[in-house]
Amino acid sequence: MSSYYEETSISTEVDTFIDSFLQAHDKRIEDLRNMPKQATEAIWHPFMQHSERNENNVVAMESAYGDYFQTYTKQKDASQASGEAKTSLLQPAFDASASWWTQGLGHGNPQLALTAAHAAGKYGHVMFAGAVHEPALTLAQTLIQRMDNPRLSKVFYTDNGSTGMEVAVKMALRAASKRHGWSPEDNVEILGLIGSYHGDTMGTMDCSEPSIFNKKVEWYQGRGHWLDFPQVKLRDGQWIVEPPKSMHKAVGKTRTFNSLEEIFDLEARRADWGRYRSYLDAELWHLRQQGHKFGALIMEPVILGAGGMMFADPLFQRCLVDAVRGIDPNMDNARAMDAQGADKDWQGMPVIFDEVFTGLYRLGRFDAAGFLGTDPDIVVNAKLLTGGLLPLCTTTASEAIFEAFLSADKSDALLHGHSYTAHAIGCSVANESLSTMASISQNEDWEGFRKDWKAPALAEGHRDSTPWSMWSKSFVETVSRKPNVESVFAIGSVFAMSLKDPAGSGYASTAATGLRDRLFNGGQSGEPVIHSRVLGNVLYLMGAMTSTPETLKGVEETVLRALDV
Amino acid sequence: MSSYYEETSISTEVDTFIDSFLQAHDKRIEDLRNMPKQATEAIWHPFMQHSERNENNVVAMESAYGDYFQTYTKQKDASQASGEAKTSLLQPAFDASASWWTQGLGHGNPQLALTAAHAAGKYGHVMFAGAVHEPALTLAQTLIQRMDNPRLSKVFYTDNGSTGMEVAVKMALRAASKRHGWSPEDNVEILGLIGSYHGDTMGTMDCSEPSIFNKKVEWYQGRGHWLDFPQVKLRDGQWIVEPPKSMHKAVGKTRTFNSLEEIFDLEARRADWGRYRSYLDAELWHLRQQGHKFGALIMEPVILGAGGMMFADPLFQRCLVDAVRGIDPNMDNARAMDAQGADKDWQGMPVIFDEVFTGLYRLGRFDAAGFLGTDPDIVVNAKLLTGGLLPLCTTTASEAIFEAFLSADKSDALLHGHSYTAHAIGCSVANESLSTMASISQNEDWEGFRKDWKAPALAEGHRDSTPWSMWSKSFVETVSRKPNVESVFAIGSVFAMSLKDPAGSGYASTAATGLRDRLFNGGQSGEPVIHSRVLGNVLYLMGAMTSTPETLKGVEETVLRALDV
Repeated sequence: MSSYYEETSISTEVDTFIDSFLQAHDKRIEDLRNMPKQATEAIWHPFMQHSERNENNVVAMESAYGDYFQTYTKQKDASQASGEAKTSLLQPAFDASASWWTQGLGHGNPQLALTAAHAAGKYGHVMFAGAVHEPALTLAQTLIQRMDNPRLSKVFYTDNGSTGMEVAVKMALRAASKRHGWSPEDNVEILGLIGSYHGDTMGTMDCSEPSIFNKKVEWYQGRGHWLDFPQVKLRDGQWIVEPPKSMHKAVGKTRTFNSLEEIFDLEARRADWGRYRSYLDAELWHLRQQGHKFGALIMEPVILGAGGMMFADPLFQRCLVDAVRGIDPNMDNARAMDAQGADKDWQGMPVIFDEVFTGLYRLGRFDAAGFLGTDPDIVVNAKLLTGGLLPLCTTTASEAIFEAFLSADKSDALLHGHSYTAHAIGCSVANESLSTMASISQNEDWEGFRKDWKAPALAEGHRDSTPWSMWSKSFVETVSRKPNVESVFAIGSVFAMSLKDPAGSGYASTAATGLRDRLFNGGQSGEPVIHSRVLGNVLYLMGAMTSTPETLKGVEETVLRALDV
Repeated sequence: MSSYYEETSISTEVDTFIDSFLQAHDKRIEDLRNMPKQATEAIWHPFMQHSERNENNVVAMESAYGDYFQTYTKQKDASQASGEAKTSLLQPAFDASASWWTQGLGHGNPQLALTAAHAAGKYGHVMFAGAVHEPALTLAQTLIQRMDNPRLSKVFYTDNGSTGMEVAVKMALRAASKRHGWSPEDNVEILGLIGSYHGDTMGTMDCSEPSIFNKKVEWYQGRGHWLDFPQVKLRDGQWIVEPPKSMHKAVGKTRTFNSLEEIFDLEARRADWGRYRSYLDAELWHLRQQGHKFGALIMEPVILGAGGMMFADPLFQRCLVDAVRGIDPNMDNARAMDAQGADKDWQGMPVIFDEVFTGLYRLGRFDAAGFLGTDPDIVVNAKLLTGGLLPLCTTTASEAIFEAFLSADKSDALLHGHSYTAHAIGCSVANESLSTMASISQNEDWEGFRKDWKAPALAEGHRDSTPWSMWSKSFVETVSRKPNVESVFAIGSVFAMSLKDPAGSGYASTAATGLRDRLFNGGQSGEPVIHSRVLGNVLYLMGAMTSTPETLKGVEETVLRALDV
């Protein structure tokens, strides 16, 4: 036996094999080392000022699994080569932006990969005009049923949040223009909130007020009016609702609350309800007096994402919907909801909820609309829809909106549809994701998260809209007391902290980038590495639905240490 | 042994199994039968007037493989039940729209399914901002190398043709505005061709002249000037180039050619070249005199797809590029190309080629720009990019365009990027598709197609731009002589026929729908069934790159019979 091994081990076949094995390994390492530089030559990156790009600050993603990337950066490689402790060339990094808010079930999820492969083998992509296949039908039915919104009845498919919002806007403008007899010359506008963001296409950019994102786009022309709004924050351990200065006279100054739950108990906040409605009714009256014609109210419910991670007072958003619909402001919550539910047609103007970021378990429940206790006429979903694998978007509309496009004339139809509309892989993966996320929402980990956040029990029936977070209450409170932190919030999988920025906040701020870099580069000392994204002076952390309490706890500890540096 | 089978076959286990098997089968049939009706309840279809939709005209796609759907329609089910020959509930139907122009490698392609599964397992989706992964890098490098256009150097990823064109427009407008010092108030416009179509989003709709697609979109406002152009047609067996009436005075009337090849021999058409340039130079001079400021020339090279399947004279398109670039009109082709190649910067205005439909082997070669012998500054690719599996789009730009966004200010960057930008599955599948299509382009089937179309050999070096089609020359000529056919054309995988329409052509025409319905419903008599799409009075047929000569021949025979009904 040993002579066999001795002989074999000196044979040329083995040498050849070992050589080719080592060469393949060297090639793989070499490719990885070259990737950042090659990327700077061939790639135009999204959302990046390329004068700042170089081979040291492009991260090569070798692979990814669960909550972690396997990353390679030239910078770390160099510092290792210069004599620091040599570990692996690859660095696992916690994906703290959930890969731009897409990850529901973690990277490389085997079940999603199998589902994708099955649909690819059974259908590839099949044309969707005038046709239907099982995955697209099942997904449409599931969304309509699970959103539990009696208005919604029809699902339109596109490829991403931007195109889904384009469709939503086209739907709403047609419905409103048809009812009111408006023509294009009437300059129909959007009503929205300041700081909103609804996509990168020029049509969706026109739905937001001028900002860093759109003001230098040559064809941008904001078409609407945008209201400021009170924000929910945790500052120095105290939950507050902070109206902007411009609203102080009408609704009062900052108010404190005992818990996040208390802020979401809309019915109990009758005084705020009345103040908000008085303010909003007057605002709308003035806007109409000025001749504004609104074709839609568009809002991201609860959290305004890309515009800077702002937590809107859910009661204010609810009151805005009631106001545009002309709901009697003296009605209590239950009767107001009944009044809205009874008539499935839109009132005042179509209400679009952009749930591309906030929907589908991101905030701990199926939809974000439920937190407001109101039923939008159009809802847009994407990102988590496919659990984090590939692009797909749904725009779900009410029957009344759908009917506005019916006529004997083909040219009255919604003439919109991308080539891969309702692609079978996307729909199949979405069905698998939604059912898996539904199970997760009942599992022990999530029970634990909810228990951690439980405030004194609210009245029956509020259970579903009680807010909670995957990030621990103690972590959130501790961060809120840090001297360099202005305020924080957490809900569902999202945690965000605004860092104090002497130069004034905004997207161009650099207050948070120092912390981001410390979190990513701290790994030399064996510290777990965190790959995070910032929006101006806000650094956020976002788990996948599958992130475990242990993983999140490790991330929390790392962040707390980095904040103390 | 036989007693074993006898005993076993009467056991209750077997009965139970058979029952459950039959129940599962019945359920599957029942689900299939219910799908069209359920689709009318839950789905909002693309590009459809829903007042015409009912459970009889929605096609259920049970699955798909290769060139065929497995289709179920209520209508056929009912006609079978009423006593006609009972075959299968499912009907194989040739996918003659290549599933809205997406199919490169056929439905359910096993290699693409495996590639998708591998990427899903290795990465899922990984965030692309400031990052890179191997599939995205390889795809960018491949596109830049294979397009063989010395201007192109940077690839930007989005999800579909509409968003890719949005990016192209943002790029061009910025570059032009920066060089000329234009501000948004300068009302910068697009120069294009009448009948062009560049996407469904509102920004890309603004790039086309008013048409059925956009004129009822409330926010549409065409921002540009669109030129009419001479079209290539085969009528009664004769290839012609037919200028619109408005151009007769300047460029003459319809001219005849011995072959399609002759039309594409641009250098040999010196007289046309001179006439086109005189006409275009004068047009551009007038437009500039009127104060138009153009931020981009946008064209679909050779074939204008969604706008109605129009075959543009490639020489006219080439001359338009030369004209906006101010190339000396007396230069011969070779020197003109040299002159353009020497300066990689854009001249006059950035030139965008929308190759979403025409690119990547659709017309028989890697790109369609090569037919014109010119180098655009920006090229957009999608559809065939992923071989027909899932959405992905690339916008490839020149270094000069890229540099227009460089500054010390982040807000000058191209602030665009969708969540699933450069998703690993899409990029991996695209790499696999491009390399497979490259092999196919050298295989025996394609050699046969080329041989069928070979006209007398052209001068050396023209080989690559010689036009040919997967549809047989004899079929194309035969159809062109049918009394109900106005004209036809074929190039690459595309065949299109304009049917005579007494009521005048256009998207709302119904001249072709009768033929479409005959092709789809003819299957009762055992005739192969064809699922086709029409654009106004145009019915087109489109193969995948993998469609065999035998399959296409069968389709041709069916179409010829249907035309004679």
